[in-house]
Amino acid sequence: MEKKELLYEGKAKKVFATDDPELLIVSYKDDATAFNGKKKGTIAGKGVINNRMSNRLMDKLEQSGIPTHYVRELSDRETLVKKVQIVPLEVIVRNVSAGSFAKRYGVEEGVVFDRPTLEFSYKNDALDDPLICLPHIYALGLASEKEMDTIKAYSYGINRFLKDFWASCGVTLVDFKIEFGRLPDGKIVLADEISPDTCRLWDSATGKKLDKDRFRRDLGGVEEAYAEIMGRLEAADRG
Amino acid sequence: MEKKELLYEGKAKKVFATDDPELLIVSYKDDATAFNGKKKGTIAGKGVINNRMSNRLMDKLEQSGIPTHYVRELSDRETLVKKVQIVPLEVIVRNVSAGSFAKRYGVEEGVVFDRPTLEFSYKNDALDDPLICLPHIYALGLASEKEMDTIKAYSYGINRFLKDFWASCGVTLVDFKIEFGRLPDGKIVLADEISPDTCRLWDSATGKKLDKDRFRRDLGGVEEAYAEIMGRLEAADRG
Repeated sequence: MEKKELLYEGKAKKVFATDDPELLIVSYKDDATAFNGKKKGTIAGKGVINNRMSNRLMDKLEQSGIPTHYVRELSDRETLVKKVQIVPLEVIVRNVSAGSFAKRYGVEEGVVFDRPTLEFSYKNDALDDPLICLPHIYALGLASEKEMDTIKAYSYGINRFLKDFWASCGVTLVDFKIEFGRLPDGKIVLADEISPDTCRLWDSATGKKLDKDRFRRDLGGVEEAYAEIMGRLEAADRG
Repeated sequence: MEKKELLYEGKAKKVFATDDPELLIVSYKDDATAFNGKKKGTIAGKGVINNRMSNRLMDKLEQSGIPTHYVRELSDRETLVKKVQIVPLEVIVRNVSAGSFAKRYGVEEGVVFDRPTLEFSYKNDALDDPLICLPHIYALGLASEKEMDTIKAYSYGINRFLKDFWASCGVTLVDFKIEFGRLPDGKIVLADEISPDTCRLWDSATGKKLDKDRFRRDLGGVEEAYAEIMGRLEAADRG
């Protein structure tokens, strides 16, 4: 697979064309941003960890029946994926209160919900990715009702799978952000990444944060946390 | 019905106890506020208009099958209502883009939706009444799924009725905010008010704003707009 021109450079990834118009190469960077780009930094080795972790989790999700954009890992930082048209929504599933939920509604972090919650943000940096409800998604024509039914079902399914998997690693899946895309035939697939950049992962015994909140909140030990959580995943895979 | 102690004074209304523990007296003020109290002023005669208009509309809604808290008008500014436990949500129905919707999603005002949208804000001044989605309403225990199904159905029904009524007055119902409450037996009823303070009402021919946006946006002619819209309602009632 030949890597061709750079199509897009985001906060944490570069995307390249290939000689196949239906495939792209994603390259993971060590750059980290938070608060819609207001905070910037570097997390050494993050790109390698996020690339590998996301690929392993997507592979597991595919096996459990969730279609994804993942094709195959090319190198430490590079992965071949299917080209999709991204649905301009951040889909957030929460099992425990934290982050923007806790702040927005004035509740403590760490409240375990009886059942998971699902919310959507409109992907629009200029508007600061505002929370958006289903009727507004339809009013703005961002996705169809049929597509949203699929996205809702996949999101809860992904949560069930990931929550159980992380529990087997001694880790609580607090919340996570995913994105979906449309293949040329209109089929909805999980796209983007699943990593400590996009999930809140707390050690089940101690509550220690093993995710990007260490960077966002200047908690220190950022690289160590990324390495720790990747180590847990690898240990689980070894059985 | 004897008016007893003042129970609550809000931005635009006072609420008094009565000698019947299940009934309250609402007294409408001329005070106007906007942007969560950051802008303050007075609209002469507003209390009289909002009291009468809300009562007439609640009466019509009751006749069309929507239960409300309305009992009877006592005077120009005072009305007897059933005591309810307010569900701490602002319910917003929109037929045309305007206000916070236009600002939040970066779209023009005046876009007519194919079908109405419905959204909820968590009534909490300290948090600035944040937008809230259904799974969060359940996670925070603000209302049950059964209650929200009732509130959704009533809200769309109220919109159908009010949209048609205002159209017969030459007025476009752009959007409106309503609140619901629980009677002692748990029954959900429409509470609060329906007035130019809580609805966006545009002249269908000219687009002239006949509502509180004239106050919010310093457009002038505020008292005249409230009188105009009340006159339209009275003319429609006279047939």
